[in-house]
Amino acid sequence: MAMSESPEISGSSTATVIGTSRSESDLNHFAPRRRAVNNAVDARTRVVERNNSGNGETVDARDRMESANFSRENVNENPTNSDTRFTYRPSVPAHWRIKESPLSSDNIFQQSHAGLFNLCVVVLVAVNSRLIIENLMKYGWLIRSGFWFSSRSLRDWPLFMCCLSLPIFPIAAFVVEKLLQQNQISERTLILLHILISTLAVLYPVVVILRCDSAFLSGIALMLLACIVWLKLVSYAHTNSDMRSVTKLTEKGSEGCMYNVSFRSLAYFMAAPTLCYQTSYPRTASIRKNWVVRQFIKLIIFTGLMGFIIEQYINPIVQNSQHPLKANFLYAIERILKLSVPNTYVWLCMFYSFFHLWLNILAELLRFGDREFYKDWWNAKTVEEYWRMWNMPVHKWMVRHIYLPCLRNGIPKGVAVLIAFLVSAIFHELCIAVPCHLFKLWAFFGIMFQAPLVLITSYLQNKFQSSMVGNMIFWFIFCILGQPTCVLLYYHDLMNRKGSAD
Amino acid sequence: MAMSESPEISGSSTATVIGTSRSESDLNHFAPRRRAVNNAVDARTRVVERNNSGNGETVDARDRMESANFSRENVNENPTNSDTRFTYRPSVPAHWRIKESPLSSDNIFQQSHAGLFNLCVVVLVAVNSRLIIENLMKYGWLIRSGFWFSSRSLRDWPLFMCCLSLPIFPIAAFVVEKLLQQNQISERTLILLHILISTLAVLYPVVVILRCDSAFLSGIALMLLACIVWLKLVSYAHTNSDMRSVTKLTEKGSEGCMYNVSFRSLAYFMAAPTLCYQTSYPRTASIRKNWVVRQFIKLIIFTGLMGFIIEQYINPIVQNSQHPLKANFLYAIERILKLSVPNTYVWLCMFYSFFHLWLNILAELLRFGDREFYKDWWNAKTVEEYWRMWNMPVHKWMVRHIYLPCLRNGIPKGVAVLIAFLVSAIFHELCIAVPCHLFKLWAFFGIMFQAPLVLITSYLQNKFQSSMVGNMIFWFIFCILGQPTCVLLYYHDLMNRKGSAD
Repeated sequence: MAMSESPEISGSSTATVIGTSRSESDLNHFAPRRRAVNNAVDARTRVVERNNSGNGETVDARDRMESANFSRENVNENPTNSDTRFTYRPSVPAHWRIKESPLSSDNIFQQSHAGLFNLCVVVLVAVNSRLIIENLMKYGWLIRSGFWFSSRSLRDWPLFMCCLSLPIFPIAAFVVEKLLQQNQISERTLILLHILISTLAVLYPVVVILRCDSAFLSGIALMLLACIVWLKLVSYAHTNSDMRSVTKLTEKGSEGCMYNVSFRSLAYFMAAPTLCYQTSYPRTASIRKNWVVRQFIKLIIFTGLMGFIIEQYINPIVQNSQHPLKANFLYAIERILKLSVPNTYVWLCMFYSFFHLWLNILAELLRFGDREFYKDWWNAKTVEEYWRMWNMPVHKWMVRHIYLPCLRNGIPKGVAVLIAFLVSAIFHELCIAVPCHLFKLWAFFGIMFQAPLVLITSYLQNKFQSSMVGNMIFWFIFCILGQPTCVLLYYHDLMNRKGSAD
Repeated sequence: MAMSESPEISGSSTATVIGTSRSESDLNHFAPRRRAVNNAVDARTRVVERNNSGNGETVDARDRMESANFSRENVNENPTNSDTRFTYRPSVPAHWRIKESPLSSDNIFQQSHAGLFNLCVVVLVAVNSRLIIENLMKYGWLIRSGFWFSSRSLRDWPLFMCCLSLPIFPIAAFVVEKLLQQNQISERTLILLHILISTLAVLYPVVVILRCDSAFLSGIALMLLACIVWLKLVSYAHTNSDMRSVTKLTEKGSEGCMYNVSFRSLAYFMAAPTLCYQTSYPRTASIRKNWVVRQFIKLIIFTGLMGFIIEQYINPIVQNSQHPLKANFLYAIERILKLSVPNTYVWLCMFYSFFHLWLNILAELLRFGDREFYKDWWNAKTVEEYWRMWNMPVHKWMVRHIYLPCLRNGIPKGVAVLIAFLVSAIFHELCIAVPCHLFKLWAFFGIMFQAPLVLITSYLQNKFQSSMVGNMIFWFIFCILGQPTCVLLYYHDLMNRKGSAD
């Protein structure tokens, strides 16, 4: 237990040795005791002082300097072996001044407690390892060979064909813009045609999915793609119309270089990882091929991990659960908490695979410069901040095509925010309800519920003035409560629908 | 999703408004687009520069300054409502410079990720809450009314009597010292008598415990008390003998005030929260009564919590387990990991209740000044540091009465450390094996195993130069692996002994 000499004992002993001749030094070893007793008396009066004035830090700082001096003297002295035989006596006091326990001292909250964070991480790893072993002992290896490709996948070919035919809509939008440029249709007809095209771009996949009994995953992929096409088409039409009105206001001469309906820029926009149309984007100088390969390998690994967690951990939990609104309360909470952990990991994997890896690969291949697809949302202090940092392409689209136009038309900020959430809620509901073939509005209310949450977390953030509270509430509501509840609600409604359909 | 205007869009728009007359301002809104396109071209060349020289930070810093300027101008301008109607056009580019994804940037490891720490805490709380609910659904409420006081407790009265008779030994030691002072016995007899007294102080409780079939907890409490008495007696004898030899070396005149065998100081030493004898200690000015009451309430709460965790969580896990060395490997790991979490909490409660609360209460009641019963061992970077910071009374005793005397007698440092660990191991084994009535040496080897660990963690600490690695290894070996394994080993050997005895 005693690894090296404690600084106060060795320090005070050697300190007295300095400056005395070697032969006499033995006689002086008792001096520290006298000094220490004085110190003790000293300390008593010092404590009274401290109680009166409360300047404990000064005293501590002096002590620290003292001990630093001691150790320096130690090094300078470099005591020989015969010295150590006569110093370090047990009669030297072990307690020579008043000290507080670390946990009693006032500055315990200012000190670093990196060790406690490490403890959290270690306990988390231990708990998760145990759950992995428990799952393995209970269910065995759940991944079957049919996991990656099954005959079911073939039933989804109509969705695949629909996916391939989606480029028709941007081409149609381009033709409409060209017709207007050649003055063959009026501005009003153009707007009507754009509304028709963009509505069709969403309705067509919805009809295909609802008519085919497709797999859930294929359905959700197609719906996401359709929504992206819709958002891009709206941005294209809106930006072009605004550019026309700006061009009309400026002098006629520079018109050509400003507003130009080019198929090239539309095609690039449709492929690029952005939802906001502009005629040119910041571009990088070259494609880093090795980097792309590395990101692609990571993408495969993380997508595989995601699939593994879903098959091995989430599926058994969900299948062994009851409807969260119908089961007994404690049981429902237990299921939601159990589901929350793998769900959080899947969510983080999904974020990393899609928002970081996939969008970066796409951007690198297209030499797209602005890679800010997300900000550090994990540090978000309020729900509002989270929504502003988590999905930058959608956030930028919302600001440019919903929020700012609302402000320009004199709509108050709060209402503009509500409208933005409404649009977001409709698309979340579409993307989940259509592939599930049921419209229970859980996702819709899940997003609309964010609006009051924004107010609550902003209020809490202002009240506590601490970045921790809002951030913890955000994590708790998202990962622990919100998403697992939605997963269970959709799963059980889906099972009930299938049960009643049979 | 769009809470407030994104700084780059609103910023660049309003920036151009400044300095132009209000009526003309609408005509200028297209300027930012031109600027942005230039920017994009600019950025392309800038990226080439960056790739060549790698000074990306300078560019970022400039950008940050720019955006700071924008927002300042925003405030100065204070735009009216009619302004917002004409600015914020969708034709203003959303992407106007090259940016990296946060996770791609090199300084991601330098940034604060307090949010991820919060996520760890939230997930930990979720996992623990679920385990609590699961335990409640599986076992119900395990605390019975007999938990706090049962008829079994009455069987432990011989231990209680033994505990009350322990003060005989310090009194005997005092009498021996007095006899020497009055020159009625020789120095040699004194040493023999001290050895006899201190050995008896440990042997007597050992015999009482082994002869009575006492409860484990009563046994361990008595053994701890006996060990404390032994350590104090050794310190008393050692310090007195050293003080005598020092007094002989100094002039005869000052003898009286130096070396003085006083019953008062021995009695204070036996009661005080220290193991190192000195004739006087630093003392505080007064007893803070309210503070003591508050600490006492905390002590009751934390001791109760500890008992609750043991009864409700540790007992079922241990009872449902098999012998860790005989069961299948995966099963044993699962049990150890499951046990590790409540075990860690009990250990932290035990530390807080005993080392912080109880020793502080005792010190306050005795106006004992030096409250440094522990240092911030939770931040320990190596196993060596942990042992130097965790139990300061024992550490100080080890340094004063084992380690330094070894050094003074010319024993090398490494051997002195080994001897200190050996003494520690013997006492750990005594305190656990005697109340268990079995001598399997698990605790002994558990402590002796620390010596190689000290070397390993010091090596790793030097190699990685990071405070995280050593600290994590320390937590892992202590809380996750070491203690639960020892608990399971002792429990099953105890059960086997009882089984074969029946």
